[in-house]
Amino acid sequence: MNLGLAPDTFSFPVRVYYEDTDSGGVVYYANYLKFLERARTEWLRAAGFEQPELLRDHNVIFVVRSVAIEYLRPAQFNDELTVTVRMEKLGRSTIEVFQTVERDAKLVEATVKIVCVDGASFKPVSIPAPIKQQLESLAPA
Amino acid sequence: MNLGLAPDTFSFPVRVYYEDTDSGGVVYYANYLKFLERARTEWLRAAGFEQPELLRDHNVIFVVRSVAIEYLRPAQFNDELTVTVRMEKLGRSTIEVFQTVERDAKLVEATVKIVCVDGASFKPVSIPAPIKQQLESLAPA
Amino acid sequence: MNLGLAPDTFSFPVRVYYEDTDSGGVVYYANYLKFLERARTEWLRAAGFEQPELLRDHNVIFVVRSVAIEYLRPAQFNDELTVTVRMEKLGRSTIEVFQTVERDAKLVEATVKIVCVDGASFKPVSIPAPIKQQLESLAPA
Amino acid sequence: MNLGLAPDTFSFPVRVYYEDTDSGGVVYYANYLKFLERARTEWLRAAGFEQPELLRDHNVIFVVRSVAIEYLRPAQFNDELTVTVRMEKLGRSTIEVFQTVERDAKLVEATVKIVCVDGASFKPVSIPAPIKQQLESLAPA
Repeated sequence: MNLGLAPDTFSFPVRVYYEDTDSGGVVYYANYLKFLERARTEWLRAAGFEQPELLRDHNVIFVVRSVAIEYLRPAQFNDELTVTVRMEKLGRSTIEVFQTVERDAKLVEATVKIVCVDGASFKPVSIPAPIKQQLESLAPA
Repeated sequence: MNLGLAPDTFSFPVRVYYEDTDSGGVVYYANYLKFLERARTEWLRAAGFEQPELLRDHNVIFVVRSVAIEYLRPAQFNDELTVTVRMEKLGRSTIEVFQTVERDAKLVEATVKIVCVDGASFKPVSIPAPIKQQLESLAPA
Repeated sequence: MNLGLAPDTFSFPVRVYYEDTDSGGVVYYANYLKFLERARTEWLRAAGFEQPELLRDHNVIFVVRSVAIEYLRPAQFNDELTVTVRMEKLGRSTIEVFQTVERDAKLVEATVKIVCVDGASFKPVSIPAPIKQQLESLAPA
Repeated sequence: MNLGLAPDTFSFPVRVYYEDTDSGGVVYYANYLKFLERARTEWLRAAGFEQPELLRDHNVIFVVRSVAIEYLRPAQFNDELTVTVRMEKLGRSTIEVFQTVERDAKLVEATVKIVCVDGASFKPVSIPAPIKQQLESLAPA
């Protein structure tokens, strides 16, 4: 499927299983946040980052600070979805990404703000320089 | 615990179990949306609405159209949380609520927009008059 | 509701929310294991044990070693369920409990084996004496 | 990875995300049942069955009747797991499968009994002949 994605947009496939649905017959609204995080994890991995190593080598964790999500159309059991990630802003300690969940049309769109925090205190810290450098390659021109 | 809530604010207790947490040692970010929905369900019940009856008697379902959620402080295993619901706006087919998750301090705050849809087509419809009337009693003065 | 429970049987109420159901219209099979654990957590709490304290004071965690679960009848959205816990066997490092999920009839029954493990190595260890003593008061005569 | 699987054993990869873990630092015990079902869904798909079509064309659903699961070793965040499915018994209306979750070693093993039920009444019915025939090709010699 050609989603006509911009070259700086990462995409990841997600299959809908029974676990994801609710008795309304559609994907339960909280479960899209799981799909969004799976795609962010794979986007970081594709950029060379394994999160357990970020913690071990740099003592940082990326945590979600806010989500603004719109539910446009419902997904259903057995659907093959595509989840996208595009970096919008890269700050000193924050990352903002724009994400979508798509099938034949856009089902969900979300803006997610992530903060780099100390692995022990959970206080915001600057994104370590070597990570920042690599993230810049993902940022919009 | 006196949360100093306004009289038009509904509150509901939630205990954090292992199922709610992740290996970061805190409540997983998507799971707060479950807590928020439990509280909305109990808020509707307290107002006299059982959702299966809304579907059976009026052929409508309330679905979430958007969520804007901010994660301020993390909750942990075994915490006793209070989840609040306050109606912000009541439209022809939409309801907007403001919700928080609290412990000793505010952990999460969220604005949730809900749409009344036809139980079969999932198209937005006017909130049936008898329901609307009762919801107005929950709305801010 | 009088379930005619034996005096050594603990019971805990669980309400079914949308998060628990799937598109088959019933509670998703894995989610009963969440209900079972909530009841075990509350059973331990009623016996005087807070799990974070067990870890802090005795450096032990109780982990599930096996589950044998039978699904007899389905639960649905909005159901009010009762989850029960009864200790069957108390060994040197193991606890075996029998649990049910009930509504008007028995919906689920399960035998769950739990092992006391070291909080760091996850290796089985003897249940610390003061905990064992208190658990014995829960054991069948 | 060569797991030395018998030729009649189906295997499916599962990556562990944050959503799957708990604050004990390992995969939450109920979530393995999600992994097991994802693999069974893909095993049925590989055998030519799409579950929405089974319901539409034959008015049947496969539901889980019982699970006996042993937790041998814990999985952790970011692990790449392999979930296997092997048919053990094929009855008139029942299927019994043996499943494992593996990494470098076996982490979990489970026997799952499935019943074919009427899509409306949820009463057990014979597995429709064309499905039975195809399932026989998956059964042990």
